[in-house]
Amino acid sequence: MRNTFGNVLTVTLFGESHGPEIGAVLDGLAPGMTVSEERIRKLLSLRRPAGAISTARAEADEFRIVSGVFEGRTTGTPLTILIPNTNTKSTDYEKTRFLPRPGHADYTATCKYHGFEDYRGGGHFSGRLTAALVAAGGILLPALEKKGIRIGTHIASLGGGEEFLSDRPFSAGNEELEKEIDALSSRAFPVLDLTMEAPMKERILAAKEALDSVGGILETAVTGVPAGLGEPWFDTLEGALSHALFSIPAVKGVEFGRAFTEVLLPGSAYNDAFYAVSNPDGEDSGKTVKTPEKGQIPPESGFIVRTKTNHNGGVNGGITNGMPLVFRTAVKPTPSIMREQETVDIKTGENALLHISGRHDPAIIHRARVVVDCMSAMVLADFLSLKYGTDYLRD
Amino acid sequence: MRNTFGNVLTVTLFGESHGPEIGAVLDGLAPGMTVSEERIRKLLSLRRPAGAISTARAEADEFRIVSGVFEGRTTGTPLTILIPNTNTKSTDYEKTRFLPRPGHADYTATCKYHGFEDYRGGGHFSGRLTAALVAAGGILLPALEKKGIRIGTHIASLGGGEEFLSDRPFSAGNEELEKEIDALSSRAFPVLDLTMEAPMKERILAAKEALDSVGGILETAVTGVPAGLGEPWFDTLEGALSHALFSIPAVKGVEFGRAFTEVLLPGSAYNDAFYAVSNPDGEDSGKTVKTPEKGQIPPESGFIVRTKTNHNGGVNGGITNGMPLVFRTAVKPTPSIMREQETVDIKTGENALLHISGRHDPAIIHRARVVVDCMSAMVLADFLSLKYGTDYLRD
Amino acid sequence: MRNTFGNVLTVTLFGESHGPEIGAVLDGLAPGMTVSEERIRKLLSLRRPAGAISTARAEADEFRIVSGVFEGRTTGTPLTILIPNTNTKSTDYEKTRFLPRPGHADYTATCKYHGFEDYRGGGHFSGRLTAALVAAGGILLPALEKKGIRIGTHIASLGGGEEFLSDRPFSAGNEELEKEIDALSSRAFPVLDLTMEAPMKERILAAKEALDSVGGILETAVTGVPAGLGEPWFDTLEGALSHALFSIPAVKGVEFGRAFTEVLLPGSAYNDAFYAVSNPDGEDSGKTVKTPEKGQIPPESGFIVRTKTNHNGGVNGGITNGMPLVFRTAVKPTPSIMREQETVDIKTGENALLHISGRHDPAIIHRARVVVDCMSAMVLADFLSLKYGTDYLRD
Amino acid sequence: MRNTFGNVLTVTLFGESHGPEIGAVLDGLAPGMTVSEERIRKLLSLRRPAGAISTARAEADEFRIVSGVFEGRTTGTPLTILIPNTNTKSTDYEKTRFLPRPGHADYTATCKYHGFEDYRGGGHFSGRLTAALVAAGGILLPALEKKGIRIGTHIASLGGGEEFLSDRPFSAGNEELEKEIDALSSRAFPVLDLTMEAPMKERILAAKEALDSVGGILETAVTGVPAGLGEPWFDTLEGALSHALFSIPAVKGVEFGRAFTEVLLPGSAYNDAFYAVSNPDGEDSGKTVKTPEKGQIPPESGFIVRTKTNHNGGVNGGITNGMPLVFRTAVKPTPSIMREQETVDIKTGENALLHISGRHDPAIIHRARVVVDCMSAMVLADFLSLKYGTDYLRD
Repeated sequence: MRNTFGNVLTVTLFGESHGPEIGAVLDGLAPGMTVSEERIRKLLSLRRPAGAISTARAEADEFRIVSGVFEGRTTGTPLTILIPNTNTKSTDYEKTRFLPRPGHADYTATCKYHGFEDYRGGGHFSGRLTAALVAAGGILLPALEKKGIRIGTHIASLGGGEEFLSDRPFSAGNEELEKEIDALSSRAFPVLDLTMEAPMKERILAAKEALDSVGGILETAVTGVPAGLGEPWFDTLEGALSHALFSIPAVKGVEFGRAFTEVLLPGSAYNDAFYAVSNPDGEDSGKTVKTPEKGQIPPESGFIVRTKTNHNGGVNGGITNGMPLVFRTAVKPTPSIMREQETVDIKTGENALLHISGRHDPAIIHRARVVVDCMSAMVLADFLSLKYGTDYLRD
Repeated sequence: MRNTFGNVLTVTLFGESHGPEIGAVLDGLAPGMTVSEERIRKLLSLRRPAGAISTARAEADEFRIVSGVFEGRTTGTPLTILIPNTNTKSTDYEKTRFLPRPGHADYTATCKYHGFEDYRGGGHFSGRLTAALVAAGGILLPALEKKGIRIGTHIASLGGGEEFLSDRPFSAGNEELEKEIDALSSRAFPVLDLTMEAPMKERILAAKEALDSVGGILETAVTGVPAGLGEPWFDTLEGALSHALFSIPAVKGVEFGRAFTEVLLPGSAYNDAFYAVSNPDGEDSGKTVKTPEKGQIPPESGFIVRTKTNHNGGVNGGITNGMPLVFRTAVKPTPSIMREQETVDIKTGENALLHISGRHDPAIIHRARVVVDCMSAMVLADFLSLKYGTDYLRD
Repeated sequence: MRNTFGNVLTVTLFGESHGPEIGAVLDGLAPGMTVSEERIRKLLSLRRPAGAISTARAEADEFRIVSGVFEGRTTGTPLTILIPNTNTKSTDYEKTRFLPRPGHADYTATCKYHGFEDYRGGGHFSGRLTAALVAAGGILLPALEKKGIRIGTHIASLGGGEEFLSDRPFSAGNEELEKEIDALSSRAFPVLDLTMEAPMKERILAAKEALDSVGGILETAVTGVPAGLGEPWFDTLEGALSHALFSIPAVKGVEFGRAFTEVLLPGSAYNDAFYAVSNPDGEDSGKTVKTPEKGQIPPESGFIVRTKTNHNGGVNGGITNGMPLVFRTAVKPTPSIMREQETVDIKTGENALLHISGRHDPAIIHRARVVVDCMSAMVLADFLSLKYGTDYLRD
Repeated sequence: MRNTFGNVLTVTLFGESHGPEIGAVLDGLAPGMTVSEERIRKLLSLRRPAGAISTARAEADEFRIVSGVFEGRTTGTPLTILIPNTNTKSTDYEKTRFLPRPGHADYTATCKYHGFEDYRGGGHFSGRLTAALVAAGGILLPALEKKGIRIGTHIASLGGGEEFLSDRPFSAGNEELEKEIDALSSRAFPVLDLTMEAPMKERILAAKEALDSVGGILETAVTGVPAGLGEPWFDTLEGALSHALFSIPAVKGVEFGRAFTEVLLPGSAYNDAFYAVSNPDGEDSGKTVKTPEKGQIPPESGFIVRTKTNHNGGVNGGITNGMPLVFRTAVKPTPSIMREQETVDIKTGENALLHISGRHDPAIIHRARVVVDCMSAMVLADFLSLKYGTDYLRD
């Protein structure tokens, strides 16, 4: 389905970096969801280039909602957000039109679109389009919060040097974790350990000065997800989330928990042991534990089940288990660097050297995190609407 | 779409571990593809439990194709493969019916299906169902090979001990890589460096003796994939592949190249430099390089473009670039271990200790690799059929 | 999606008329639905050839459910029904392999599948496959009935003579209508006016003797459908239903109400006037009429809205309005007739005369009605699950 | 998928009648298709209200393409068309906000969207949105014409009086039919027999004067469709087309050929006899007839197959047979009439009388025909792209 994603709650993405407007259509929204333009604006500000560590392209991100909202609430029909492109300098791209940037989509775009693609500024492949995804996420994140679901992402590791820089991990306890997510939502530079902000920024600035770029690893936590979301085959929650996350430009890996390290543990250490707590929100407020009837599930049954560790990142057999979702996303260093690079002139077939001009980010990882949050919100909103019905996210 | 996966070439998976039959429906196949039952049998043998390092459950994997094949060729209508379940011992599961295994899907199955699920042997969540996926892959792998596409997977790392054991990596050169893939296709224990077979098997046996289990990391290479497959949003090749791979039980992470390590490099080291080679298969056999017309692409244009390194794993901007696809899959240790484990009795809500009986694998990574190959074949066959039309895979 | 239909509750259909087995996979079922094999058998008996007015091919329709049911209830995972083919006489088809039957799919099958199709008995195009759809409907019809939804179809008109024969129309009153639907469910020959059974059967027998066939028009009514199902674009209930109905072999037209006649009325006569009745099932039992709050809808609001006529067949703007769904389906005369017919030898390209042997129905309209019921059940079950969530149809 | 339609070439529709803009996103287009804004404008003019027989609302239909087109050609990425709404008079609707119009979607909109819908001018249900579909069709119709496919629709019957008015039917011969389609494309009032234009227009004016409205039956012909498009289950060409056509507001029936009349013929009269003609475009130019090899199909094989009649409307077994597609669409009389009508005040639950003001069409059938053409173009472009690959429609 290409530029449309989702099962019952879908997003359709369109636009090019240097075209007149980019945008997104959200379909399958419940009617009656409050739309906060202020929240959208706040989220967009977290994605916007921020000072010396980002591109000099100033993006106003003025957006218009042209359908699907009436008297401040969703109507239930497609909600369309348009964001005009401003401050484009297409001439930067004309000189290098036939010199694809290593690591970028220029070459594969030509292979797929036979040279008819809009090459300016990365065209439809541009990270610019994530602004529309973030705006769409600005509708969904508050709706999920009303259901008790919080999503937050921090820079777990930043590369680019001899040794990488690491933030401290998320807390295991649910209450602390919720506080950390809330704190991240107002930080322009997303770290848990605030003492890491300065060295990480310096690392990015150093890369910029060296005409280079840096990548890193984002870690996301989602609290409040009910148990039972996802499918064994093929729409595992992991599969659907990774499908969405790999759409974000520069994402090259997705792991639940810290899989690439932890799957090397023995099963006895990797398995997350279960324990029961009485259900605080249930009828019994935890005073008694009822025997569940067939057809009942925890937490209907008077107790809830937790795990002592969370190596599985909140998912077993493709389905949420009620623990926080925790996953990590590998974000490669921005491919557009100012250094001389080897490429091919695809008009002549001759090897060539590339010196790009234009305005580029030495790192996008701090901007990408809000995109990860918003894409995650879309997948969760879709799965919730599928399970509980299309009116579920109504206020 | 749950148990159906794919855009224009789809697989629908059904069955339970201890039900009468499992199976798969392949839809969207080209008419006229040769069906080799011998190849299916060969692939199934690579998935089958093999001696001491696997479960003692003997699976005959006798299969029947009941639709979609006529006179030895696909008809183009749905091809259905059925595999009877034999050698099931359901009584092993009755005693622990209400004691979910840590790390397994027992608990989340109950959350989702409210206790109506078939709990015996993991039911619909069982790795048993991958036999049907492998059988389906037995139709697709030979069809891809006829188009010059080869797929192979080896155990890159095996965990479970103080230090993990590693196989040597795939070769960078295309010719050597093709030979390595061909060699893997006949090895029951998939390693490139044959001296690693014995220590890895010992590690698995040691885990078995310790009533424990081991996981590891699979690495897959695909050669011969044409440039231009995949979409910028949302059906990136990476996203679609990871979506499929996360369906395989125990998969907890997917990375292209070695993303979780390599994205920490600076951009100047991570970017894959381009260079041109004349097109050996084109009209000019590389003697001259023609200027491509608009609408032409490499390799139509007399030359082809390669990259000096392959950190991106063959994909830029979600689209194949003509280099080998290389990706890694984190496979967690088998959750069913014989050791005492902490769990919850979900009938009473009380904490409990679990001792499982039954027959379980101390490792499934050596069996999972052929499932990875077959799922990858499905994604590629689907994307090829989408791009080139539904008759493309016809012999 | 070819052989898979539905949004969140899907059916996948497979098999060939003379292959070993046909079948269907139902996915997206709620867990915990009671499965009555007796009801499936009863529905299959309504589809089975019945005496002189049908083909002489005796179909046992023994079915097996091989997945998705455990201890008599749906598990929520894919439910697979297999029906073996018996009593096939493939030799009848060999002689005429290259002589496509006028009106049948033989020629278009060759165009699409390039001669690789299984030509015997219509192969995958055979009406035989509707047995699997009816079996699948046997799971869904009782589940809808538990929600108060009834579906019934009668032969509104039978053609084939100078004048066509007509049954009386469905009653307008809801109570009478429900009784009529219930009565139809036990009639092998589906007419409302029992005096029409004999002349219609005679008409079919006369066609058989004349080596000819007859078609007609089926009319379906569905009661108890809640208001608010369907979409303005593009999944109107009309569009989704017609999409499903046109899959039934021989269906060539679908109209809501009696559209092809009634749209020629002036708007003032065609429009269905609204009137209110107090809501008998609501809190107030109709004693008072409450002003609905924003976010409330009828019938939550103390009254329900009905229409005086039902020219729109229960759908306005693509969405159900709470009145009975009424639609009609044009079923063409069986194309396989014993008379000499003009065709082309597609091996030589020469004009040829066709005399078919084999066992064919002089009419299938009386057998098709239960297929219409079952396909309608699938569309409604899918739309209900989409709106109210995937557990909605649980007992 | 609600507001997105299609398999591999999709349209996503958004907007409300009185919102700022309506629009459509076309995804899955081949790269390199020429985009003619003039053709779009011409098609929009055929949909636009035309003088006394239409609404007085003047619609400028100024459109902007904001993505997916670069240097006059499609890029292959999503093409977005926006059409601003002008000349809206929302006050007309405020007075009757709680008085749903009989036959219109007002009441069902409230049932589905719980009162959160934009009620002004029909909101998202408005025929106004078909302007975006027509604009999208303006991209696809010329692309199909380059492949030799022509689509045309005329008013077969107009209702509203004692007797309905009928145009002459399409010609059977392919050459005449193509000329008729070409002639229709430049007629604002689509009839084949020009002497019918005046009486039909008078009928519409008479309805207007009587504060009433009229409906009718559209007949569409498509020439040049290759044999082999469509699926046996469930994506029959008939099913997919009807699914799309029922989305057009006021469509209540779809038949292939003249099914509701002709299925009452005996099979011997209904069946379309085959005959062969040599293939004028093949290698042999019809001089010889070659025996087709397995895997070859007509017309590859030196001859083509035609039918003497076309009761089946160009489709057998769900698949095109190479004859012209012919189908009819029942369009109900416009529900918004000026006469007093019975309705219910949904705020109080009391019966009420409705007098609407606003500007409404006494008939929309003459405007709807270009919408039918464009929706048909979408379905065919989708099926062609599915069968022949996503680059197929490239110039």
